[in-house]
Amino acid sequence: MNTIVQKYGGTSMGTIARIQNVAKRIIAKKEQGNRMVVVVSAMGKSTDHLVEMAYAVNEKPPKREMDMLLATGEQVSISMLSMALDEMGYKAISFTGPQVGIKTEGLHGRARIMDVDKTKIVEALDEDKIVIVAGFQGVNENDDITTLGRGGSDTSAVALSVVLGCPCEIYTDVDGIYGVDPRLYPPAKKLDVVSYDEMLEMASLGAGVMNPRAIELGRKYNADILVASSINKVPGTLITSNIDQQAKDITGLAVYDDEMMVSIKDVPYRSDVAAQLFADLAEAGINVDMISQTKPINDKMHISFSLSTEDRDLLGKVLPAFQAEYEGTEVTIRDDTVKLSVVGSGMKLHSGVASRFFALLCEQQFPILMVTTSDIRISCMIPKEAKERVVMAVADGFEL
Amino acid sequence: MNTIVQKYGGTSMGTIARIQNVAKRIIAKKEQGNRMVVVVSAMGKSTDHLVEMAYAVNEKPPKREMDMLLATGEQVSISMLSMALDEMGYKAISFTGPQVGIKTEGLHGRARIMDVDKTKIVEALDEDKIVIVAGFQGVNENDDITTLGRGGSDTSAVALSVVLGCPCEIYTDVDGIYGVDPRLYPPAKKLDVVSYDEMLEMASLGAGVMNPRAIELGRKYNADILVASSINKVPGTLITSNIDQQAKDITGLAVYDDEMMVSIKDVPYRSDVAAQLFADLAEAGINVDMISQTKPINDKMHISFSLSTEDRDLLGKVLPAFQAEYEGTEVTIRDDTVKLSVVGSGMKLHSGVASRFFALLCEQQFPILMVTTSDIRISCMIPKEAKERVVMAVADGFEL
Repeated sequence: MNTIVQKYGGTSMGTIARIQNVAKRIIAKKEQGNRMVVVVSAMGKSTDHLVEMAYAVNEKPPKREMDMLLATGEQVSISMLSMALDEMGYKAISFTGPQVGIKTEGLHGRARIMDVDKTKIVEALDEDKIVIVAGFQGVNENDDITTLGRGGSDTSAVALSVVLGCPCEIYTDVDGIYGVDPRLYPPAKKLDVVSYDEMLEMASLGAGVMNPRAIELGRKYNADILVASSINKVPGTLITSNIDQQAKDITGLAVYDDEMMVSIKDVPYRSDVAAQLFADLAEAGINVDMISQTKPINDKMHISFSLSTEDRDLLGKVLPAFQAEYEGTEVTIRDDTVKLSVVGSGMKLHSGVASRFFALLCEQQFPILMVTTSDIRISCMIPKEAKERVVMAVADGFEL
Repeated sequence: MNTIVQKYGGTSMGTIARIQNVAKRIIAKKEQGNRMVVVVSAMGKSTDHLVEMAYAVNEKPPKREMDMLLATGEQVSISMLSMALDEMGYKAISFTGPQVGIKTEGLHGRARIMDVDKTKIVEALDEDKIVIVAGFQGVNENDDITTLGRGGSDTSAVALSVVLGCPCEIYTDVDGIYGVDPRLYPPAKKLDVVSYDEMLEMASLGAGVMNPRAIELGRKYNADILVASSINKVPGTLITSNIDQQAKDITGLAVYDDEMMVSIKDVPYRSDVAAQLFADLAEAGINVDMISQTKPINDKMHISFSLSTEDRDLLGKVLPAFQAEYEGTEVTIRDDTVKLSVVGSGMKLHSGVASRFFALLCEQQFPILMVTTSDIRISCMIPKEAKERVVMAVADGFEL
């Protein structure tokens, strides 16, 4: 018999009726002869409600206690789903993250899964039970309850599928992965298949849906992940490494709104100066994303870099000191920018993708402020005001 | 430094403001130089809400899953209280029942505490932390979460005080233990002190407030328990074995409404007949409480016994067969009865308590249907219609 790991998110578990619907979906797969392991998130908005309660007693809730509190959300879900399955005549058993030995390390609120002990799960499957596991949570070396951060239930599901050596199905309130966010580009098409690398590039670019750690884990262990709707009966998107070599030029387009840009003019053209600048930025806790440097003129160069707007205040720790040390440099900070990226494994195979991309941008007549690339991605900073028409042009041009 | 275990019930934890009030009370004791361990129940009506949710998906929720669900209530409380203490500038750490090794055995929903591992608690106290422990819950030998049944947080608190060898303070929404339920007898007085034995007799008679298992545990290990108000600053009631030898004649009066009575006339006067009757009743699952037997007339006797009205339907398994076997017997079932009991260690010391009690009853002119006694208790079945005036007469007569 095949084992399947399914994951249902908070929206799918939001009401009694939806929980019953999830139970029916699980039973349908079980009746096809599968051994079922199901990971669930907290019901609907219950996590938000718990967070609100926490902030009502403490402006800065201690993270360990926050994890203790939030973990109850999934514990409610697993028992409710297990009861619903029992009512429908199926044996089910629920487990918290700690109970199935989901061992984590790292900070409370964003712990990382290190190990999963499958013993209890396999025992229960052998007893013909449907196994329900709390997503989003684990236990650290002190026996403290931890949570995995936003989207952590995806990671729980993928980790279980890796340990059990079986497929993973992530059910959510969207129909799958789209090449472009349909809110930005309404005619956006759903992807049938996407590679881990593409998915990771898109996830790290802020294209929601799947937790990057879940994808990394899937890629590392070569575990296929299906992302599909928990409501509609349409095929979803398969995230896999076995991607068709006839891949499209561009698979997806992502826009990241919260990125700003710093340009420094007339920096002395010496490698130690740039090195020091980026060392200072790193030390201040700033995550630099894109970097560009012009060729020197009169032994002076221009350096630009981008960073998340979240880190804006940290710049004050670095730039004034830098300018004091290197007189004559001139700093410009722009936050009227967005980062637009196109991603596609096809770039590795097909030539001319970049030139088509830049030709499309060029038609829109606006300055491209910075560019970086990887082997499957081209990103550029553009003025915020150009965002909508550029997204349209690129999505139309590459038929996303 | 002294260690104190405190317990706060659901009403005391019902709102953010009440949680903050509990935090302040804990801090006040800590500032007096005590090491504080605090057991809490689920917030307000949250357990009722969870039970409602369970029954919405399953008419007969599996008990293991019910425990999984209900345990979240206390987990929310402990993290909230811990956060409130942190906000007030005090180090606190919360633990679930399983995390502090509250090992239980027995059925889900009414497990019994077998052992508590104090290691983590003592470690945290040594780090000057206030330790918050989830009441009502533990873990069984399968690593499953269990709950202790109604009033189980009292038992958790007493168990911790036993393991830590320190006093136990149970804070609740009443001012202490009353000799009579003030709803039955408004001028009822609060007791300053009561013995375990008296408390156990009263608890088993249905006089609420404290869980009988908690009292048994306290008695077994000789741990004093203070029951007091979480709101009013009045002294509570101390449950102890070191009771003043000048004890009152009667400490408390309890009425149990849900007890009914069966009388069988003209039973052959042979010891094996009574033996068989009570064996059959036990086999049917009926808990017989009081028993009386008349002296034989013409080799026939009358047997009466009382049972909880909950077991009423089980009588049909026993009585018809009994009557078929012993022709000429006549069965009368009365459920217009209540059981009234007076309890007091003073009975062992002072003579004449029973005669004063029966004299008081006699003045009220009603039939006493059955009587049983222990060394510190007298119970009698009386007609329901006499209940109010008998309670008044006895409570007045013994100044309860």
